[in-house]
Amino acid sequence: MVSKHYFAVIFTSTLIDNPIGYHEMALKMEELARQQHGFIDISSARNETGITVSYWETEQAILNWKANIDHQLAQKLGKSTWYASYKVEIARVERSYVFSK
Amino acid sequence: MVSKHYFAVIFTSTLIDNPIGYHEMALKMEELARQQHGFIDISSARNETGITVSYWETEQAILNWKANIDHQLAQKLGKSTWYASYKVEIARVERSYVFSK
Repeated sequence: MVSKHYFAVIFTSTLIDNPIGYHEMALKMEELARQQHGFIDISSARNETGITVSYWETEQAILNWKANIDHQLAQKLGKSTWYASYKVEIARVERSYVFSK
Repeated sequence: MVSKHYFAVIFTSTLIDNPIGYHEMALKMEELARQQHGFIDISSARNETGITVSYWETEQAILNWKANIDHQLAQKLGKSTWYASYKVEIARVERSYVFSK
């Protein structure tokens, strides 16, 4: 994690019942995100609600990732097929602290 | 959700094995957070990693919640007992968009 400001995309979603092909696509998109310029890290958890937070060095890196052609296709499939709802929030991380045993 | 800028606390954590009393405390803290001045919303998911995002109207509301006496006790117990690791990030949400079927 870098010490200067960085950016987080908070993606909160609910899926339809039995979202065939979703998990494969989610893994594929995570792999692809990791290869993008300006990518820092990604973290995911899902119960009824799913939360994925991806971290980026700049807002431009986020815009580039949003416009990535394979990601665009996944976004379209997500809206037409897998997601019941989602929310995307782009946030600037002002400060952070960590704890580890 | 308010239309002006708001703030997110992204809390990412891993638990020790068998964290006795953790889930009861997490629920209690979520209820207490909802009662705080400036609170907007909270969303949680947990697999191996847990992610909780709470939303606040101002940074001062976040500081007040951090300093809340019952929350302070929960934080102490979390560090001494339940959490293997955690990261707290305070972020300013710059823009957001939603989708719903």
